[in-house]
Amino acid sequence: MAESWLDIAAESDFSLINIPFGIITYAGASAPRVAVAIGDKVLDLAIFSANKGFSGLPAIQPYLHVFHEPTLNAFAALGRPIHRQVREYLQKVFAKDGPYRHLLQDNQELRNTSFTDLTAVQTYLPMHIGDYTDFYVGKHHAYNVGVLFRGPSNALQPNYTHLPVGYHGRASSVVVSGTPVRRPWGQILNAEKAPIYHPSKRLDIELELGAFVCKGNRLGAPVPLTQAEDYLFGYVLLNDWSARDVQAWEYVPLGPFNAKNFASTVSAWVVLADALEPFRAEGIPNESQVQSYLKSDVKKAMFDINLEVSLQPSGTASGTVISRSNGRNLLWSFPQMVTHHTVGGCPMNVGDLLGSGTISGPESGTEGSLLELTNGGSKPFDVGGVKRTFLEDGDEVVLRGWCKNTNGQRLGFGECRGQILEAWKDGVASE
Amino acid sequence: MAESWLDIAAESDFSLINIPFGIITYAGASAPRVAVAIGDKVLDLAIFSANKGFSGLPAIQPYLHVFHEPTLNAFAALGRPIHRQVREYLQKVFAKDGPYRHLLQDNQELRNTSFTDLTAVQTYLPMHIGDYTDFYVGKHHAYNVGVLFRGPSNALQPNYTHLPVGYHGRASSVVVSGTPVRRPWGQILNAEKAPIYHPSKRLDIELELGAFVCKGNRLGAPVPLTQAEDYLFGYVLLNDWSARDVQAWEYVPLGPFNAKNFASTVSAWVVLADALEPFRAEGIPNESQVQSYLKSDVKKAMFDINLEVSLQPSGTASGTVISRSNGRNLLWSFPQMVTHHTVGGCPMNVGDLLGSGTISGPESGTEGSLLELTNGGSKPFDVGGVKRTFLEDGDEVVLRGWCKNTNGQRLGFGECRGQILEAWKDGVASE
Repeated sequence: MAESWLDIAAESDFSLINIPFGIITYAGASAPRVAVAIGDKVLDLAIFSANKGFSGLPAIQPYLHVFHEPTLNAFAALGRPIHRQVREYLQKVFAKDGPYRHLLQDNQELRNTSFTDLTAVQTYLPMHIGDYTDFYVGKHHAYNVGVLFRGPSNALQPNYTHLPVGYHGRASSVVVSGTPVRRPWGQILNAEKAPIYHPSKRLDIELELGAFVCKGNRLGAPVPLTQAEDYLFGYVLLNDWSARDVQAWEYVPLGPFNAKNFASTVSAWVVLADALEPFRAEGIPNESQVQSYLKSDVKKAMFDINLEVSLQPSGTASGTVISRSNGRNLLWSFPQMVTHHTVGGCPMNVGDLLGSGTISGPESGTEGSLLELTNGGSKPFDVGGVKRTFLEDGDEVVLRGWCKNTNGQRLGFGECRGQILEAWKDGVASE
Repeated sequence: MAESWLDIAAESDFSLINIPFGIITYAGASAPRVAVAIGDKVLDLAIFSANKGFSGLPAIQPYLHVFHEPTLNAFAALGRPIHRQVREYLQKVFAKDGPYRHLLQDNQELRNTSFTDLTAVQTYLPMHIGDYTDFYVGKHHAYNVGVLFRGPSNALQPNYTHLPVGYHGRASSVVVSGTPVRRPWGQILNAEKAPIYHPSKRLDIELELGAFVCKGNRLGAPVPLTQAEDYLFGYVLLNDWSARDVQAWEYVPLGPFNAKNFASTVSAWVVLADALEPFRAEGIPNESQVQSYLKSDVKKAMFDINLEVSLQPSGTASGTVISRSNGRNLLWSFPQMVTHHTVGGCPMNVGDLLGSGTISGPESGTEGSLLELTNGGSKPFDVGGVKRTFLEDGDEVVLRGWCKNTNGQRLGFGECRGQILEAWKDGVASE
């Protein structure tokens, strides 16, 4: 990979090997539009494309309108080969003294108008999400939670290693990084195990990866595993906020509902599937006899993504990393999730979001939820000099994720951030 | 209610007291548009509104474009007071020798161009559905299923009478009446209780009511029960097709997923909430102490809607009614569902679909699913001279629903119809 003429810090998430896509506005550009993040800058692709920035890429010419859209859906719908070409083209544009140096490197005027500081942009939910599905394929998480509820001998349900367990989430409450999260009211049990109407007392996080879908299948037509990669546009960090006390009371027999649907936060910049290709890695081995439709010859079906959870307790000055995990800690891959999701004929649409489920590692300190970190809420931990079990009002959580290749080059996801607002008084929202 | 100058059969679903809204095309009108059904005709509101049909209703003048939309979302978003005025206005337009007789009754030209035979139109999914939630508030159904799985003493889960149990469904596979339903492949258990990859052998129906949402709340802002009626646009019949064998294996611990997401069918004509007002009725009494946010003074919170399931086995000449139930058989009302759904701050959007869950009655012959009708698949029943337990390929199911007032006037939902197509050979979809 060439050097860039841009000044990109070695530890930047948005390096030349990344080129993630997002939706932004900024002073003087009030209509949401498509951008890529590079170093500590963003390139406004609406302006770049309107000023012949893509003149060296004939394949994108009929579709330049996609960069003026308020979501990435239209760009995503162009398909994996186009994403690949656009990303590689932009890498050449950003490369020092490359074939397209006249477009930006030597074009001070367009550099002035098309670049903005990353800190000066407002980001938006990158895609219009039709349906959001959350899987549960972080096996260590499922095991840890199973131990808490049923003991180690029955920790995993019998189906767990046979199919990617998942459930339908709520699309309407998926929000972009930085959106505050209001502590939800709901039904929880009191000390006498009677239900009461109360703000959640066990507000938790879930460290997940999310994948956005870039291709639809028609009703009734399953997606074979050999084609499933074509459906995966790119990846984000996902915090599936959870009200554990609401969940414990409501979830039998139909699964989590209000415990999860008050908010799910995604990072703002979509790391394209192609950017993660060099970071393929083996996941958790599955010793069960896998059904034919889920069988794959692909050994490295996961990604070696370092993941961490940082918590800044209310009133403290900075966040502390409370957990470190890795994207390899999954039993099923995203292509397997797509194939299982559609095996009965369920249609995917461009923009659908698939969550991995909580990604915990096998050791202490790698748990992807406070439920696990605190042994079901029974063991508070120290963070920045204060004690926590579950989240308190004002606490801020940031998920981070990054890959590093053998040359020391780094690619990251940016932040997935959210701060807890206090519950409404008496459950009634103020204006 | 006046007589109509239109020839409306006494047994028509689409009487003058109904005026349901839908989306249609027909020969010469290929862009989907809004219509109302009346007797055996439909009135094309795109044409009617473009020809001064609404000239007697000032309130709708700024919004006439909504009738040219391919979904009812824009009309729904105008709010309950406008729906009410438009419906009442159209009732006057259709009333014999009424104040607006010049608009249609005496205007042969517009009658010729704006009316089409109901049998000549193609109907579409009436709304763009952002999120679909299926509740489980048909208490007799929950009890019946609970008895099958856990016996009569533990039939209902402890939470059941305290909150409207529900789960997030799949919006992308909600289809309009008449859409064929492909038998899904999936994982089911064989006789030795080992999972196999196979087409479902226990394909079932669920007789439900669906409600469409016409108002959004913002993230974090619960909808109080006193305001929840404003969020309910209208009602349809809903068949939540279910693969019981897939469900039994997959659903622990996160609820139904592929067992339900291959298809859910809704009737094509949305009966406005106002049309059902005269048919309010008491539901199933709830003897639990109901939490404050779900408490209501409204005694008649359900609707007295006669419901029936008709099954036409493959190769037979006509359908046979196999079950009769009623919309009163619910423990929680749709406003209570809205309020519970949003109590933690989950946002509703215009077009969201809420399902009631299966509506079974307390007696034999009123079961809303084959699972119940056949005692878990153990007791086949006779229908049109053939035996059935679950659905076979080619079987066609029609849900019907109607209300009758004390004057003998009738209002109905039209059909919610679907026929089972055979599973794909080897699980691979043909073109």
